[in-house]
Amino acid sequence: MDNEARFSALNLVLPPAPEPKGVYTPLLKVGCFIYISGHLPVNNDGTLQRGKIGQDMDQDAGKLAARQVGLTILATLIANLGSLNRIKRVIKVFGMVNATTDFEKQPYIVNGCSELLVEVFGRENGIGVRSAVGVGSLPENVPVEIEAIFELNEE
Amino acid sequence: MDNEARFSALNLVLPPAPEPKGVYTPLLKVGCFIYISGHLPVNNDGTLQRGKIGQDMDQDAGKLAARQVGLTILATLIANLGSLNRIKRVIKVFGMVNATTDFEKQPYIVNGCSELLVEVFGRENGIGVRSAVGVGSLPENVPVEIEAIFELNEE
Amino acid sequence: MDNEARFSALNLVLPPAPEPKGVYTPLLKVGCFIYISGHLPVNNDGTLQRGKIGQDMDQDAGKLAARQVGLTILATLIANLGSLNRIKRVIKVFGMVNATTDFEKQPYIVNGCSELLVEVFGRENGIGVRSAVGVGSLPENVPVEIEAIFELNEE
Repeated sequence: MDNEARFSALNLVLPPAPEPKGVYTPLLKVGCFIYISGHLPVNNDGTLQRGKIGQDMDQDAGKLAARQVGLTILATLIANLGSLNRIKRVIKVFGMVNATTDFEKQPYIVNGCSELLVEVFGRENGIGVRSAVGVGSLPENVPVEIEAIFELNEE
Repeated sequence: MDNEARFSALNLVLPPAPEPKGVYTPLLKVGCFIYISGHLPVNNDGTLQRGKIGQDMDQDAGKLAARQVGLTILATLIANLGSLNRIKRVIKVFGMVNATTDFEKQPYIVNGCSELLVEVFGRENGIGVRSAVGVGSLPENVPVEIEAIFELNEE
Repeated sequence: MDNEARFSALNLVLPPAPEPKGVYTPLLKVGCFIYISGHLPVNNDGTLQRGKIGQDMDQDAGKLAARQVGLTILATLIANLGSLNRIKRVIKVFGMVNATTDFEKQPYIVNGCSELLVEVFGRENGIGVRSAVGVGSLPENVPVEIEAIFELNEE
């Protein structure tokens, strides 16, 4: 089964692909790689999810926020590439979690995004390397920001 | 207009290219890519700008500090490559902002660097992907640290 | 002298190569590059080192923790590649230090890993680009997390 078929079968609702909030592009093609800017959790109505994990929301809400970041990244991929079938695999995910300084479950949070990528790209190609860390603060006080690198299929 | 011509027209004063503060090199050429280590805001007299944004300085001072990091990166590029015309484009900027935990304007801060890169490399090639995040602390308590990846022209 | 010879001469004891703590792979080969996920300081008995630098441990203990992260990365490299002689050079090290918000010596901490990489890969090839930053929190409250990129020799 291919990426688009898996994506369709999931019946996911994607948020709008975000406009840049500064001097950057959300996606850049570099040879056969796609670099993805840090993405925030955009709701389906275009607003941002807000809150610090361990203070304003618990870890399960945080994991859902990371899944929403993943949906936002998918929206950017589709808006720029046309089809998810152009993606060969996930290379890297870097998950930055806006949490209190005693928070210890960053990998649990970022799994919200990583599990979505596996649902769409499959176990073989949906799992790349990853770092999950707790940052001090994030733009608009969102709970999670995630950047990524994907590899494209040969054309 | 090429990078060197734009750079000259800006009449910028660059700080000295920084020596490494640990076991790393400020710049590494990897095929047609230039990896840039995390750079700090070096003043033109070689000292470092210090302070946490939201506590010791406001966001406009922080944005100027990010511009100074950009000037420091330009100093490293010129010291190592000879000419900015060897640069084809900006691939990625990763901006790490030393701010209080309630700070929300990291993209505004990092724009200080990104806008400089656009002035020098142009709109087409000066804008890459980017993440802007708030970190807990930075070396020597500088307000911003930025790392980057550039692509070189074919030679 | 080659990497394996230098490694043997150091008589290092490596921790077990860590299993992933989430939906990721510790190492991914992408063309002639090896991407390494964020690694934590795994003790030789498989447990994790814990503590925030500047609060639970001083900077010398933190530097040792970063060295232990380096040993853990070596364990992952050997478990996946078979021989360290497949590594051509260090491209990048990204060191994330779990410290109090007034901490300023992140480069000193991360040198614990970087110095180990020089011991194993030599001065010419063991030094790449690097960023060292203080994060707000880390998984399991470890003191340091480090991710890296290596280049492979042609085969």
